[in-house]
Amino acid sequence: MSKRKICVAVTARPSYARIRSALAAIRDHADLELQLVAAASALLDRYGNAVDVIRHEGFEVDRRVYSILEGENLVTTAKSTGIGLSEMAGVINDLAPDIVVSVADRFETMATAVAAAYMNVPLAHVQGGEITGSIDEKVRHAVTKLADLHLVASERAAERVIRMGERPESVHVTGCPSIDVAKTAIRDPRIEEDLFEAYGGVGPALDLDKGYIVVMQHPVSTEYAASRAHIEETLHAVARLGLPTLWFWPNVDAGSDGTSKGIRVFREQHGLPHVHFFKNLPPEPFLRLVYNSLCIVGNSSVAIRECSYLGVPAVNIGSRQTGRDRGRNVVDVNYDRDEIAAAIRRQASRGRLAPDLLYGDGCAGERIAEVLKNAPLTIEKRLTY
Amino acid sequence: MSKRKICVAVTARPSYARIRSALAAIRDHADLELQLVAAASALLDRYGNAVDVIRHEGFEVDRRVYSILEGENLVTTAKSTGIGLSEMAGVINDLAPDIVVSVADRFETMATAVAAAYMNVPLAHVQGGEITGSIDEKVRHAVTKLADLHLVASERAAERVIRMGERPESVHVTGCPSIDVAKTAIRDPRIEEDLFEAYGGVGPALDLDKGYIVVMQHPVSTEYAASRAHIEETLHAVARLGLPTLWFWPNVDAGSDGTSKGIRVFREQHGLPHVHFFKNLPPEPFLRLVYNSLCIVGNSSVAIRECSYLGVPAVNIGSRQTGRDRGRNVVDVNYDRDEIAAAIRRQASRGRLAPDLLYGDGCAGERIAEVLKNAPLTIEKRLTY
Amino acid sequence: MSKRKICVAVTARPSYARIRSALAAIRDHADLELQLVAAASALLDRYGNAVDVIRHEGFEVDRRVYSILEGENLVTTAKSTGIGLSEMAGVINDLAPDIVVSVADRFETMATAVAAAYMNVPLAHVQGGEITGSIDEKVRHAVTKLADLHLVASERAAERVIRMGERPESVHVTGCPSIDVAKTAIRDPRIEEDLFEAYGGVGPALDLDKGYIVVMQHPVSTEYAASRAHIEETLHAVARLGLPTLWFWPNVDAGSDGTSKGIRVFREQHGLPHVHFFKNLPPEPFLRLVYNSLCIVGNSSVAIRECSYLGVPAVNIGSRQTGRDRGRNVVDVNYDRDEIAAAIRRQASRGRLAPDLLYGDGCAGERIAEVLKNAPLTIEKRLTY
Amino acid sequence: MSKRKICVAVTARPSYARIRSALAAIRDHADLELQLVAAASALLDRYGNAVDVIRHEGFEVDRRVYSILEGENLVTTAKSTGIGLSEMAGVINDLAPDIVVSVADRFETMATAVAAAYMNVPLAHVQGGEITGSIDEKVRHAVTKLADLHLVASERAAERVIRMGERPESVHVTGCPSIDVAKTAIRDPRIEEDLFEAYGGVGPALDLDKGYIVVMQHPVSTEYAASRAHIEETLHAVARLGLPTLWFWPNVDAGSDGTSKGIRVFREQHGLPHVHFFKNLPPEPFLRLVYNSLCIVGNSSVAIRECSYLGVPAVNIGSRQTGRDRGRNVVDVNYDRDEIAAAIRRQASRGRLAPDLLYGDGCAGERIAEVLKNAPLTIEKRLTY
Repeated sequence: MSKRKICVAVTARPSYARIRSALAAIRDHADLELQLVAAASALLDRYGNAVDVIRHEGFEVDRRVYSILEGENLVTTAKSTGIGLSEMAGVINDLAPDIVVSVADRFETMATAVAAAYMNVPLAHVQGGEITGSIDEKVRHAVTKLADLHLVASERAAERVIRMGERPESVHVTGCPSIDVAKTAIRDPRIEEDLFEAYGGVGPALDLDKGYIVVMQHPVSTEYAASRAHIEETLHAVARLGLPTLWFWPNVDAGSDGTSKGIRVFREQHGLPHVHFFKNLPPEPFLRLVYNSLCIVGNSSVAIRECSYLGVPAVNIGSRQTGRDRGRNVVDVNYDRDEIAAAIRRQASRGRLAPDLLYGDGCAGERIAEVLKNAPLTIEKRLTY
Repeated sequence: MSKRKICVAVTARPSYARIRSALAAIRDHADLELQLVAAASALLDRYGNAVDVIRHEGFEVDRRVYSILEGENLVTTAKSTGIGLSEMAGVINDLAPDIVVSVADRFETMATAVAAAYMNVPLAHVQGGEITGSIDEKVRHAVTKLADLHLVASERAAERVIRMGERPESVHVTGCPSIDVAKTAIRDPRIEEDLFEAYGGVGPALDLDKGYIVVMQHPVSTEYAASRAHIEETLHAVARLGLPTLWFWPNVDAGSDGTSKGIRVFREQHGLPHVHFFKNLPPEPFLRLVYNSLCIVGNSSVAIRECSYLGVPAVNIGSRQTGRDRGRNVVDVNYDRDEIAAAIRRQASRGRLAPDLLYGDGCAGERIAEVLKNAPLTIEKRLTY
Repeated sequence: MSKRKICVAVTARPSYARIRSALAAIRDHADLELQLVAAASALLDRYGNAVDVIRHEGFEVDRRVYSILEGENLVTTAKSTGIGLSEMAGVINDLAPDIVVSVADRFETMATAVAAAYMNVPLAHVQGGEITGSIDEKVRHAVTKLADLHLVASERAAERVIRMGERPESVHVTGCPSIDVAKTAIRDPRIEEDLFEAYGGVGPALDLDKGYIVVMQHPVSTEYAASRAHIEETLHAVARLGLPTLWFWPNVDAGSDGTSKGIRVFREQHGLPHVHFFKNLPPEPFLRLVYNSLCIVGNSSVAIRECSYLGVPAVNIGSRQTGRDRGRNVVDVNYDRDEIAAAIRRQASRGRLAPDLLYGDGCAGERIAEVLKNAPLTIEKRLTY
Repeated sequence: MSKRKICVAVTARPSYARIRSALAAIRDHADLELQLVAAASALLDRYGNAVDVIRHEGFEVDRRVYSILEGENLVTTAKSTGIGLSEMAGVINDLAPDIVVSVADRFETMATAVAAAYMNVPLAHVQGGEITGSIDEKVRHAVTKLADLHLVASERAAERVIRMGERPESVHVTGCPSIDVAKTAIRDPRIEEDLFEAYGGVGPALDLDKGYIVVMQHPVSTEYAASRAHIEETLHAVARLGLPTLWFWPNVDAGSDGTSKGIRVFREQHGLPHVHFFKNLPPEPFLRLVYNSLCIVGNSSVAIRECSYLGVPAVNIGSRQTGRDRGRNVVDVNYDRDEIAAAIRRQASRGRLAPDLLYGDGCAGERIAEVLKNAPLTIEKRLTY
């Protein structure tokens, strides 16, 4: 019997981090063949060139799909998705997969999902059933309605997918593959000695032994104009505290321009001598850095998901993660430098917490591969009510 | 106070028929401004050039969006959607509407819906919450999850949209605007004397006074290869019965080629002297013809929706309408010439039935305009559970 | 030493006919590897589905590029070229050819040529240096200026390419590969007995033994609105003469709609019982039919090129072939039914003429393959003056 | 009589600088209406956001065309051109100009030119007939073959265009509009006191009174891989001399990445305390800076064109400008730090030279507007031989 061909489109650095253990499990499964597509901002230098990381970690990239139209505004975001959809249709036609896997809820994911659905290829969706608000919310649930197979992170997510009218037998609680990586970080938490040489970035090499914080803040697309004002609150708070800080650059999104510019200008004007900026790190070293940090700050889902398992206290800023199920490690604050600074101070003094299994137990990748091997290949579905 | 700008994208002949009374109500509303976009197969000669009908009926077309890539297969369907999405983003940017309206569930509708959602323009969806199966099912519910406002045909549909996690206050039961047109057909049911001259088509001018049937059968996209076999069963049944028949040509869809070819070849070989083929008719004369017919045959939703209100008996073939709520006028059969012929014979002898208000009472257009005028303009939403 | 990879994009039925012997020679050459791309209208059913002919004749198609946007107007023609360019860039990137070959002067050819030039792949152009007027004229010479290698049909064409500033050593007189096919038609001129069964089409099976004419008339894109008026003159002339007629359907082009509609409507109204319409034939049977005809009528370049070698008298209508070098077989007339009818009568009585070597001697394919094998692979060039 | 509508597509900062006086003359002409399209990298922040400059200088932008696909390699360059072509076709259709103007020879220019030609709109080409080598050479002459009207900079260029087979009456020697801007720089050569505050950039505010040099070096697309090595030679030479230096950032092009990275890395490692980097300046202040400099270094055409008129000595590096007609101000060197440093030293000591009228006398804009007003509107042409 021939192997099932599983086509996974990775469209960005964080999506890769999140699906990685599943990619490895698919590749290593005797009855599956991995078809890996690097697309959209996964190919772009200024968003961390995830494709290089992917190849460096031993995956073969079957196709590269350039689809991001420059301009970083809402029109180019929508047009990029159209280009991505058109390109993905060609790729799916060429690769002829048995199942297409679409990851999470970034805007480019819609391109993969629509292409698969329209080409009558069964679509598996990883990380459906969660709640975040903003455009991601619309994308995620729309992909759920296009998908034939749901590989969700938690019981809560499964319940929501089923309530949306999906057949219970198409919904599988696998845990989130991002927790799988977090598990390896716990297993071997040592930070590389040559960290700053190995991963470059901008700003001084910091002494991490005395404790440091991690910052990661993305623009929120439905609040486009406000991106710059938002990031400045965080910058002021971080500047005021003066703690050693590792700051990770945001992904491509409509509005990233406001965020990026805000950071660049602030740095020119205020110096930030205690902050080192990284563009990108492979998932493991990144999560080791997070694991060893005093606290994670910003609006990244890493703070909510991986850090609940890692037990790292988090300061979550603003609306981007609203609605997402969260563990006891998270404190929410507004875009307000005083609130942010106070919360960082409190959270950074809590110390590491016990693991919370809210988003999985670290074995999601293998479960996903198993489901992809055994699930019936169907594209016909109807609302259950 | 300036008028709210309402952008409606019409992508095909049947979508136009279905939204027409709402278009008129929006155009005529004192507080609304209609921005009408003719897109996709609405612009194509061989699918009835809906744009000409639209203009002939007094609507001004603000933009034309060519997006259908020739080839009529699954790849070109998906790529056409990508092209349409990219083009619609440009159109929405230029027209700067306050609300975008996306109609029903054809594949091109997804382009409109994603473009609006990604450009942070509130999206209103007409005809969500219904059940049909096939790719339309996925498209319809995915659009529901992208939409901010739901204008549904029936209480049953409203209930389903709410169960999918949409806020009850965003769901409005307006009835289906297609019933509005059906109402006018009942009010003045006389068929034009110069019907065959006025609307052209292929085949003899028929004597309609002694009773006739109407046929309308579309390819079913997830059963691509079977399209031709399916249409041949219907053709054999219609040929065998020998009743005067008005046959309406299918829309563009992956697979229409199989259907179209099947019809053309059969006609060359068997003659079909009692069948007249129309490419397209404006909604009113079309519905008058349906209203006066003995029976409607095929897999068009007209048989389910408009004909429940019109009281015209229907023979529904195959899976395309599976799951759709239906009135007592419908009989379902398989792709089987014997079954089809027997069902036509039975249904054609029933006579016209009493109206069924399942899909509306004929005032949907005005209700839709009113909702579009008053609904809050919001793009932020979350699952309600 | 590895074989040189030669990528040829075939975009339409007539382009295939014209390049076919070169394709065979490249495929059969010990030091070359053929990469065949079927693109644009070569993939479309209603323009003769050249891709099926290509495969039927034993070529392997490496890629299919769908790029024709429906609408058949000037906007869609331009947009289709943009889509084709974007797709061809992906194809060239995947196939990594050593040389890209672009054929003649159809609008889609520009997509291949720009893609190759921008991707730094040496571009060989077949059939440069000719004169026709209309948009083809612009396309052809623009491609010459993008090309690194010129494979021209005649000494006259070579001279023109060199005068345009191309280096003489990059220009090779190979003859036109279309003459190679014509040569095989002369070698074995017998028409298949089951012609009408084998190739279908519309209209009666004709008795060809008593003499017949061939008609082939394309829309002229810069005279868009006039296409229908033009074709009607030809239709009236052909109807009046009443000679057995084989009529070949036009290619896709902006305006083909006017031409196609003109033919369809005329046929419905006047019957044309002595005319058989073919959509497409493979090159050999087509050229055998032309070779055995009394006369060829219309504005196809076949009448000018192949028929000069075949010695078939031609009636060339209108401006489409203006400027093209012509042999003694051609008579030019205006779009005027009287002129056309008179010219057909005269030409059809001349009998077959002696071959004219104006466009080649029938060995172009092999010469082209040989040049592609030996030419230096360079992409740097400058005007010679 | 209605005004002629003249559509000009500006695709980049340098193209704008080069066409600006013509834009003003068209806008101000009583019988012309300017339709200004800002496209491609003219819209991008990291290439100087020409569109802001354009608007700041009082031009109204009628359309914005986003077409640059991120990735900065040959595939994305080609695909971007396809996207641009598709978008420009829509724009031309909407704006319905009488003439489209395409500027010079950047890769995006081909999109404008093909769109206009395929839509049967007369195409005017500014700056044809010049010689440069590289992909620009192919683009420029291909556009000449698509164009109906040629507005060239010099007698030499006119002669070349005519030798390529264009009708002499379609060729007009207007001079290059870039010289018009240079003329205003000579008329008022004072540099703004708040230069570094006003235009930002990276690096120290320099004291320009004691003499300084200007550097501007673009990647050469057909030598993609070498871009980084090339820029490093220049960087070493500039570092070694230690002269106050204003360095202008390169445009978007396949390969700009190598150049940009080379600059960034060198600056991180070596400091370059005597170099200020500008991303973009409006044409006048830019040319005033050039006019007052000791010498211009790199491979920009400004060094060849504007500087021949301005009398500024130039060190031209490498192959990018090979073949271009040059005045006595230019010295050519290889990609070699020693050669470059020696040449800069020599040229910087020559002092300002007398104006050379090789590329015009400073009145090109008005001449161009006049030709656009009076030229016959034709799209039919043929080779003259």
